[in-house]
Amino acid sequence: MGSSSSPPDPSRRRESSRVAILDATLALCQEEGYASLSIEGIAARAGVGKQTIYRWWPSKGAVLLEALDRAASEAAAFPDTGDLVADMRVTLGDIAGFQADPGLGPPLAALIAEAQQDPSIAPMMLETFFGPRRAPILERLRSAQRRGEIDPELAVEPLLEVMLGALFHRLLLRSGPLDGDYVAYVVEVLFGGRAAARRTAG
Amino acid sequence: MGSSSSPPDPSRRRESSRVAILDATLALCQEEGYASLSIEGIAARAGVGKQTIYRWWPSKGAVLLEALDRAASEAAAFPDTGDLVADMRVTLGDIAGFQADPGLGPPLAALIAEAQQDPSIAPMMLETFFGPRRAPILERLRSAQRRGEIDPELAVEPLLEVMLGALFHRLLLRSGPLDGDYVAYVVEVLFGGRAAARRTAG
Repeated sequence: MGSSSSPPDPSRRRESSRVAILDATLALCQEEGYASLSIEGIAARAGVGKQTIYRWWPSKGAVLLEALDRAASEAAAFPDTGDLVADMRVTLGDIAGFQADPGLGPPLAALIAEAQQDPSIAPMMLETFFGPRRAPILERLRSAQRRGEIDPELAVEPLLEVMLGALFHRLLLRSGPLDGDYVAYVVEVLFGGRAAARRTAG
Repeated sequence: MGSSSSPPDPSRRRESSRVAILDATLALCQEEGYASLSIEGIAARAGVGKQTIYRWWPSKGAVLLEALDRAASEAAAFPDTGDLVADMRVTLGDIAGFQADPGLGPPLAALIAEAQQDPSIAPMMLETFFGPRRAPILERLRSAQRRGEIDPELAVEPLLEVMLGALFHRLLLRSGPLDGDYVAYVVEVLFGGRAAARRTAG
């Protein structure tokens, strides 16, 4: 109120509302589940008006996707120690750790579930969530190809579908723990060639 | 009505009601989507009372699971031509064909989605749907191990999670077609060792 106080900064206020909305979304999703999540509930928890949320996001799925995106660690510089198996283990381990987190895995699973009803979700997930996180992994695989570490003729994009799919099986069907052993297994069968048929034998 | 007509056979009538219910479930799921599916709607379409359905199944998810189970081809004798890559391609191709079928893939995806809200679904899917279909594939992998085709120390159960997970990625996120090319790719990176790091090089 004093003459020295600066006027409210609208862009800063907007950013703090955005963060409050995203935090409220993840918290409510963890406490009550995705089915109970509503724009109204998020607005009440975040202390903003419903219209603020509707102005920025088309659906509760879209809010949750951005909340997960913010929670996911920034795409760190991808490790390149020269040991492909070791490097892939670190990266896939980070992804598995995210999915195994009880505050993050179930909302991600709920969003994949929502994508089966709302056709706008899957493209949004691929473009804004998975896509940017895959770029440095693809770059690491391509550098491995350039150095002759893996078959240079192999298309590497679908490898990411195989790796992530292996995690999805456990995330969505709870068929086993998303732990370091499983990550090591997946990396070993793909990049260590442990499942490869021994064609030269016999 | 004649004296020569045999009395109605209750077990046959029960079986025909069961088939009518399962057919109605898949048809409604394809026509209107899983979200609109209701026990009431299934009963009306199948020409049975709601109570008949409630007596046999605990939820609409359980009815759908049995309908999918019936639609899936019976576990055929698993091919064992001696060529592991060729045999796995046939098997994974069958599974991908099921998931790519517009009348079967979306209901399966809807059931995986439902499993994120109803914790009884995933164990039921693993036990009654996926489990029995995996048994012959596991047997093929174990015979490959006994013959030294693949690493005998490798745990083979998680291989099925990796293979099926690779298909789930495309089923659930629609990231690409569930076609023969993708099946061949997944089999090749796993069993052909195309992604394996060339450790002996250099």
